[in-house]
This record gives sequence, structure tokens and C-alpha cells, in this order.
Amino acid sequence: VRNSFDLKELRQIGIVGVGLLGGSVGMAARASGFRGKLIGAGRRASSLARALEADAVDEVTTDPAEAATGSDLVVICTPISQFEPILRRVAEGLTPGTYVTDVASAKASVVRLAERILPPGTRFVGSHPMAGSEQTGVEFARADLFQRALCLLTPTRNTKPATLQWVQAFWESLGGRTLALPARRHDQLLAGVSHLPHLVATALVNLASRSRGIRLAGPGFADATRIASGDPGMWADIVSTNRQAILRSVDQLMAELARLRQRLEKDDTRRLHQWLDAGKQARDEWVRERYNKKVLPP
Amino acid sequence: VRNSFDLKELRQIGIVGVGLLGGSVGMAARASGFRGKLIGAGRRASSLARALEADAVDEVTTDPAEAATGSDLVVICTPISQFEPILRRVAEGLTPGTYVTDVASAKASVVRLAERILPPGTRFVGSHPMAGSEQTGVEFARADLFQRALCLLTPTRNTKPATLQWVQAFWESLGGRTLALPARRHDQLLAGVSHLPHLVATALVNLASRSRGIRLAGPGFADATRIASGDPGMWADIVSTNRQAILRSVDQLMAELARLRQRLEKDDTRRLHQWLDAGKQARDEWVRERYNKKVLPP
Repeated sequence: VRNSFDLKELRQIGIVGVGLLGGSVGMAARASGFRGKLIGAGRRASSLARALEADAVDEVTTDPAEAATGSDLVVICTPISQFEPILRRVAEGLTPGTYVTDVASAKASVVRLAERILPPGTRFVGSHPMAGSEQTGVEFARADLFQRALCLLTPTRNTKPATLQWVQAFWESLGGRTLALPARRHDQLLAGVSHLPHLVATALVNLASRSRGIRLAGPGFADATRIASGDPGMWADIVSTNRQAILRSVDQLMAELARLRQRLEKDDTRRLHQWLDAGKQARDEWVRERYNKKVLPP
Repeated sequence: VRNSFDLKELRQIGIVGVGLLGGSVGMAARASGFRGKLIGAGRRASSLARALEADAVDEVTTDPAEAATGSDLVVICTPISQFEPILRRVAEGLTPGTYVTDVASAKASVVRLAERILPPGTRFVGSHPMAGSEQTGVEFARADLFQRALCLLTPTRNTKPATLQWVQAFWESLGGRTLALPARRHDQLLAGVSHLPHLVATALVNLASRSRGIRLAGPGFADATRIASGDPGMWADIVSTNRQAILRSVDQLMAELARLRQRLEKDDTRRLHQWLDAGKQARDEWVRERYNKKVLPP
């Protein structure tokens, strides 16, 4: 294990949870020049067999400790509700100096847990690669999943700068762009741009389903609600983990809808037009920045 | 003008408003075997020039009456706020027996207006082809825009069954699937599956923009808010036209968010999971029906 990062020099990467994200980490590492061994850990033999078949990993085990033993880097890609027992098992297999990260969408509690459970000398920093889709399973894993994806890292005062840099370099070697910010700030901002949109998409689908209007829905509805087809268990985990920040976001949305309601009641087309225009301008500008330029720090 | 529909036998189609939808009507008709003349009407010489250049129409005029004169069918594809003066001009050019339809996303008031203004003997029925995107302009028009698109028709008690059948056959000749329902029912259901999702997408973008969290947004946000990049003027029109039904939909969403809020406060993960699961099931079933099967009547 070395401080200056070189993907080609790593001997072994342990991936705990070989689904869409974990499988893509293995495939992307291989495609980017990693020549060492990829060990995948999982609970079910069937998903491990599919991970092998998809060439996402070289070896599999049902014990996270085995995936940690001898690895330069361990990436935890399981649902948040499994983190505590998995971190305990990973801790059993770690040698001091091993880099550990994860891919969870809510960070404050996950990072707290990792810093409490992982042994001193572990080089841990939380990650949140913003990639993936509503699909689940290693069948949908792709070597290019992290290309141009924004990977958020959440160092704490316990994180050594060299650890942060090393894990940033890892995501960048897979094609990602990285940005570091505090875990609580991450959770607040993600509540607004990821967790709330997910819940709103679910609400729109459930309302449309009850009114039977869903049969008339078109391509706009399909895109607006795509995320509602995501894994309900994984999302219940994320939402429960980040529920304080999400509650604030729900309140902000309800206040915004109340203002919209007033404008509709008054048929204030001028202000409605301005509000729609502000949304279009903000989104178009975001698309330009997000997909053509480097992302600026928050 | 004949009662049994045959696209190849039509002599002339007038398209008033040659943007994304109007241009696509022209291109799709041509691609589907229409051999007659396509006349496009519009207000601006520049957009008419682009429509000619894109081969969406054969001739152009700034007078909707000219596009109506000698046409077997007139399709009105302008923003709703321009409907009244345009219907009056179209009425000037019509001969009895001409078929007239439109593509507006809100139908009750548009259909009322058309039935009041168009002369007796006009074969009018409102249409709403659910195609298009957040893009605007004839540059984005495509011959295959209506392939498999659901085209809703809103006959009234004044609509002759033969007129409905003829206009249905027209959309089907362009690749669409048709469904007839009353205009008020259309507007209520579309408020839930199109207009409300649009407003919610705008609200999410505006909130994320104010919190500066938008810089951390990923592909889920991009899809969930794509419709917010739509033309603000067109959408202000639609929303204002259908505001009573939209107000009911906003209230339903706020009630749903209030229930969600309670579950979050109690950290009722079990019911949250059930609710997310219901959304996923409903959406997945809709995708299967929408994209693999015929659409069932509402």
C-alpha cells in the first residue's frame, strides 16, 4: 500500500456487495489498467455467481473479512442497513494502512459508523459516486459507469489529506470527477437534489396510479418518474438514514407549492411565467456546467 | 374531402404553427405516403424559412386563412394564447367539410373556442398527441415523432363519429395510437400526469438552485427535471388554461407529502418501504403496458 496512487500498482481490491455499483467498480478498475486481483463479497451465492459470470470480479466469498484480507483498497457497496455488521467483518480482515471507502448516498451516519468501527490505522474516507440508475444487479454493471460522473467525498477532521487525495485519485482513475465536502453538508444538499426528487417521483406515480390517469402518461412522465422505479429497500434505507435533512426539504417544497397555489388561484400568469422561466434558466445553466464544464465547488 | 381516410389521397394539409410538433406533422405525413401539398403558416418569416429548409412543409404563408384554403385537413399547432385570433383567420379560409384539429395539451377551453368560432360544416375534433420534448422549434422536428405515441382525442356531443374516426385514422397513419375521452376528463387526468409533474420539476430546480445544491445534482435529477427546460411561455399558457384541475392536483400532492412527512417524523420505515414499493410496482407495470401493450381505455 502506497501513498501516491497508481491503479496499475495495486495488488488487490475488495468489493463488498457486487451489484450495479460494486460490479461497475470492478469492471471500471480492470478497464482502467488495474492488473491485480478483484475479490467480491456478497451474501447470496447466486449474485456472486452472476458477478463472476459478468467478469466484474475474479474471486468471490461470502465473508467480507476475506475480501478485506490482503487488499490495498476495500469498497463497500451494500445497502446502508447492512453497514454495521459488514464494517465489523471488514475490520476483522484489515491490515493497517488499507484504504476503505463506500458508495452510500447518505453519508453522515455511515461515516460516523465507519470511524467508530474500523481499527486505527485504517485509511477511511466516505465516497458517493453519483452514478447508477433505477436498475439493480450486476447485470447492469458497466465499465464506463463512472465516466464523467461526479464522485463526492466526505472527509472528517480525522481524515488525513493524503487519504482523501488517494481515494480521489482512485475515482478519477475510473473516469470520475471528484469534489470533497463535509458529510452533513452533503446530506443536506443531496436531500434536495436526490432524495426529495425520488420521493416526489414516487408521490406522482402513486397519485397517477390511484386516479387511473397513469394510462394517459407520456414521455415527460416517464422521465420525471424514472427514479421511482429504483429499489424500494435501498431507498427506504437512504431516506430513513437522512430523514432530518429530507424533512427540511419536504417543508421547503410544500412552501414552494403553497406559493405556486396562490399564483394559480389569482391566475397570475405573469409571475407564473417568471417562475417557470427561472426554472428553465437554472436547469439549462446547470446542464451546460454539468456536462460541458468542470463542476464548481459548492 | 372524403369520409373514409386515406393519407395518400389527400391533396393538401395546412399546418398552422410549424415548430417541433407542427414540423413533425409535416415530416411524418410525407414519410407515411402523403403526396399532396403541405402549407405551413406562422407569424415569423424566420421560423417559416427554417421550416422550408427542414423540408417540414412545401409552402409557407403568414396568413392562417391561406393555409386553410383548399386544405383537406388543418392542424393547429400554436400556443394556446394565440388560438382565438388564429381560429378566426382559419375560419375565413375554410370550405365546408374540411377537417380541423389541434395539438394543445389542455383541451376543454380550446375545444369550446373551436366549436364557437369555426363555421358549421367544419369537421373539428380536438387532439393531443403526447409526443415532443422540452425542445422547441422545427430544428427538432422528426418524421418518427408520433411513432407509438399516444394521441388523445376529445370529441364532444357535437362531434360526428365519422369525424372522430377520420382524425383518429390520420394520427394512426403517422404511427400514433389513439384514445378518445371527454375534454374535461382529459384535462383532469393530464393535470396529474403532465401539468403537475412539470410544475413540480420547476419547483425542484428552483429550490436546488437557491440552495446551490444543484451543482451536486446527478443523472436522476437530470431526468426528473428535464421537463422544466420546456418553453416557459407555452407552459404558462397550458397551466393557466387548465388551472382549476391543476389546483386540485396540487392539493392532492400536498396531502400526499403531508402523509409522507408524518411517516418520516415517526421514522416509520416499514410504511415508507411499502409506499416506495407501491410506486415502483405501479410505474413498472405502466412501463410494461405503455411500451409493450396496447393502451387500455381510462
